[in-house]
Amino acid sequence: MSVRAIAHHIAGYEFARATKEKAMPMFEPLNPNYEEQLRQGFASQSVMETIGAYLLNVAPGQVEIGLDFSADLTQQHGYLHAGIVTAIVDSACGFAAYSLMPPGSGVLTVEYKVNLLAPARGEKFIATGRVIKPGRTLTVCAGEVYAIEGEARRQIALMQATMIRLADKEA
Amino acid sequence: MSVRAIAHHIAGYEFARATKEKAMPMFEPLNPNYEEQLRQGFASQSVMETIGAYLLNVAPGQVEIGLDFSADLTQQHGYLHAGIVTAIVDSACGFAAYSLMPPGSGVLTVEYKVNLLAPARGEKFIATGRVIKPGRTLTVCAGEVYAIEGEARRQIALMQATMIRLADKEA
Amino acid sequence: MSVRAIAHHIAGYEFARATKEKAMPMFEPLNPNYEEQLRQGFASQSVMETIGAYLLNVAPGQVEIGLDFSADLTQQHGYLHAGIVTAIVDSACGFAAYSLMPPGSGVLTVEYKVNLLAPARGEKFIATGRVIKPGRTLTVCAGEVYAIEGEARRQIALMQATMIRLADKEA
Amino acid sequence: MSVRAIAHHIAGYEFARATKEKAMPMFEPLNPNYEEQLRQGFASQSVMETIGAYLLNVAPGQVEIGLDFSADLTQQHGYLHAGIVTAIVDSACGFAAYSLMPPGSGVLTVEYKVNLLAPARGEKFIATGRVIKPGRTLTVCAGEVYAIEGEARRQIALMQATMIRLADKEA
Repeated sequence: MSVRAIAHHIAGYEFARATKEKAMPMFEPLNPNYEEQLRQGFASQSVMETIGAYLLNVAPGQVEIGLDFSADLTQQHGYLHAGIVTAIVDSACGFAAYSLMPPGSGVLTVEYKVNLLAPARGEKFIATGRVIKPGRTLTVCAGEVYAIEGEARRQIALMQATMIRLADKEA
Repeated sequence: MSVRAIAHHIAGYEFARATKEKAMPMFEPLNPNYEEQLRQGFASQSVMETIGAYLLNVAPGQVEIGLDFSADLTQQHGYLHAGIVTAIVDSACGFAAYSLMPPGSGVLTVEYKVNLLAPARGEKFIATGRVIKPGRTLTVCAGEVYAIEGEARRQIALMQATMIRLADKEA
Repeated sequence: MSVRAIAHHIAGYEFARATKEKAMPMFEPLNPNYEEQLRQGFASQSVMETIGAYLLNVAPGQVEIGLDFSADLTQQHGYLHAGIVTAIVDSACGFAAYSLMPPGSGVLTVEYKVNLLAPARGEKFIATGRVIKPGRTLTVCAGEVYAIEGEARRQIALMQATMIRLADKEA
Repeated sequence: MSVRAIAHHIAGYEFARATKEKAMPMFEPLNPNYEEQLRQGFASQSVMETIGAYLLNVAPGQVEIGLDFSADLTQQHGYLHAGIVTAIVDSACGFAAYSLMPPGSGVLTVEYKVNLLAPARGEKFIATGRVIKPGRTLTVCAGEVYAIEGEARRQIALMQATMIRLADKEA
């Protein structure tokens, strides 16, 4: 099979797999109580209550957080401040990483990179965090933030993040 | 409809759309000759010939580049050096951005972030660049690199990049 | 002069210059009223008041923002949430970029990368934003965040950011 | 002492320290043979010989690598390809991290972010890697690349990188 044929074969296989994974993550949680402990961890992030963020969906390796627009969270043009956009997608990625960690683990953010794709203008915002590669020590995640106005929605941010597991900690 | 219901509705919609986009990109090229000019641009990147990289697939907003392993491109553990992994995925993302630009455009990399997910060990490597958000000035792309050994494949790198359009330039 | 001799010469020169620049930035502002307009811009970022952040020092190409610890801004371990750390250093970098832009400019964050170097534990936090390379369209900045406890201080975050100039806007 | 007074005091202290550190790094190596082993590690990165890169200066927590321009390493506009710029500054940062690790350590790049500040046009290029925060597992580094033309020099790239220590490995 020629290099190009292999490449086409693999590329096709890749799209199929990526597609399937996005529709339904195929990760197996190591912690049977991950969801309960994840929800406790989210509830203990007081900043989430301060800004009005709430946990939406939780699945192994994937977490969604919602936030309603508030004029108290804006930058100089009246859009949601980049730091607040980052706060919800960082938590979504951090808890997505946590969802695949063994019992007794804690999670901390090592670093992230965020592209702000469009002004953060909307009635509601939804941040999604997905695990790209889980690891014993480090987990790499991808995050997206969407702004919702009526029936319209558009992506406003893209994150790539590295999370680290802490042993003998909670959430 | 409650916030959570909206969120579920939107999340489902999102997965559907992301899935569709990944399987078949839905971008319309502005330059009818983008593919020919993109292939000329790739051919004029002498570093690609120097390292032995070749263009595989080209589609509007998506480009794939292949590279065969060579001991001349390794770091101290015998894996492909991160700079070479970055070179092929940067070119894949840059040309993916170029494919959606109007005639007479040139493209330069503003910045990128790369996570190295696993040692770059394999017989062949395939880098994919995809446009996440095209823009008049800036285009944001996502890139992936896969290592191939026989029938096995695994992702070794993830890139998030910002490209800038130059007016009145070629490729 | 041999390559190595040139390199030593240049490296020495570099350290000297970097040192001088850090001690006293050498940028010339293009906007005579930059400081007044920058302070207005900061005052109009309602999120800064919400989290209790305040403007400390302003110089051409350099801005410092302070924040006192508050239990309302913490993550699950009681440290300042990464999104809040990011919010103050993003504003410091954005306004540092703004300080070198011509009159009538506005600034938006294109993207940033943040490394969280240590738990954000302290009584106060100081974020510094510095312009590394100003540009007509894009400005690249570096940011640092320090935690202060009594007389002790330590760096808790490092940022590298890209800012974009908007014409005919304010701050 | 008022918050602002403390801030000024700390800011001044910071500039002083940063300055001193840049002029003469104050890190103590844990490995008495770090320089010899670092030079062996660099010599075993065959890609460095392939592209013509050479080790310039080595100090605890700081490494400089040089590269002469070659038309074989260029992108479509005749400038050094971003991947090659990244290769030398990634190695500079990786070996800078290695210089502070205990005997028997190896180093791998976890991730990096690179801003390309200006076209990579010049006769020679010098990449500097500096440790910002050493750690038992992770080390955060900052890197810069300079282009040299005759007596002129300018910064063309800025990197922020995370390196990981491997136990019981070499370089």
